Amino acid sequence: MAKRWYDDACGTAQALERLGERWALLVVRELLFGARRFSDLRAGLPGLSANVLTQRLEGLEAAGVVRRRVIEGRRPVQVYELTAWGLEIEPILRALNRWVAGAVALEAGRPYSAASLMLALRGAFSAELARGFVAVIGFTLPLDRFVARVDIHGIAIRRDDSDRVDLMIEGDPATIAAVVFDGRPLADAVAESRVRYTGSRALAERFVRLFPVAARAADTAVTG
Amino acid sequence: MAKRWYDDACGTAQALERLGERWALLVVRELLFGARRFSDLRAGLPGLSANVLTQRLEGLEAAGVVRRRVIEGRRPVQVYELTAWGLEIEPILRALNRWVAGAVALEAGRPYSAASLMLALRGAFSAELARGFVAVIGFTLPLDRFVARVDIHGIAIRRDDSDRVDLMIEGDPATIAAVVFDGRPLADAVAESRVRYTGSRALAERFVRLFPVAARAADTAVTG
Repeated sequence: MAKRWYDDACGTAQALERLGERWALLVVRELLFGARRFSDLRAGLPGLSANVLTQRLEGLEAAGVVRRRVIEGRRPVQVYELTAWGLEIEPILRALNRWVAGAVALEAGRPYSAASLMLALRGAFSAELARGFVAVIGFTLPLDRFVARVDIHGIAIRRDDSDRVDLMIEGDPATIAAVVFDGRPLADAVAESRVRYTGSRALAERFVRLFPVAARAADTAVTG
Repeated sequence: MAKRWYDDACGTAQALERLGERWALLVVRELLFGARRFSDLRAGLPGLSANVLTQRLEGLEAAGVVRRRVIEGRRPVQVYELTAWGLEIEPILRALNRWVAGAVALEAGRPYSAASLMLALRGAFSAELARGFVAVIGFTLPLDRFVARVDIHGIAIRRDDSDRVDLMIEGDPATIAAVVFDGRPLADAVAESRVRYTGSRALAERFVRLFPVAARAADTAVTG
């Protein structure tokens, strides 16, 4: 059941009635890489109050985007996950990200979640630059671990604790983003102990260059 | 200058701070096919008050998405148009439309603007189905005229008064949408005088079938 915000029948209006509530799309972003507990969502969205998060989850559930599930066990755990239809929101998030990428710099000091980094990696990945590159890369982030598999099919990323990787990158998401998207030298981030990696240096240096962000022409630059 | 709604640095949040205000993306939609006067925008968005429209235009201008321009003449006219960066919002609108298409029916009785129809045609066009189809199709809508050119490069649509077309379709956007996207028989719409066309019937029947909307599996259907 969607609210009727707009007296307008077009698809854009109908989609926004389901996803346009403030924070709703960021909640979806946090769920893109699999089911999360309420406390996981809170950790990924530190700017959002528990109250508003509850409302958003209820709204997204009513819209058919999110469902609740209980993982049985000695202590059953309730998690939230995207429905099949909810998973199809990723192209919308990618389109939003692509639109700001290059025009708007990542603002230092604002929280940047693990899911944000993984979504951005998936979106900016260049199959062209990755030609011939086949490797499994692990990410050890403060709250979460992911594995990215790069091969001829592209990049596949999932939440995964595996240590069986060719390269393990450890650091906070914002610093890794600065290296990958803003051209901060990997060696600098390592020298300042903001990032560590295990694996070959050549592999690491190549991997962080697979995600070009188009520099934007001056006339489209934004002041904000 | 964007508001800081989110304490979150990811691209999604940054894009939403620029485009996430209620109605903002629908204002962008109305501008996709060229500059519009304030009164044109009001006509395309009957659910929106003049006050809120003014605020949205100011916000989009501050964000670098919209600019004002004066068309000189005996009676100078002020128009609003998208910047180069603003034009790049179309993929976001398409992603939103694609997401709801099929899952959510067009709600009868809600306003459906000319720009909504043209955006939806552009988004749903199937190059596969249009193989070998080359034609210029005019649309005479209650407030606006458009021309769509279909050829090997795809479909190009612009606001245009030209009568030099192979097929002219006349009607209201919602009825045309019902024929093109919801499978309402063209002949029925014509019999009820809701749609008229001049040109060959075979051409008209073929054209309205170039825009398939994927039917969605039952498990992803939405109740709202």
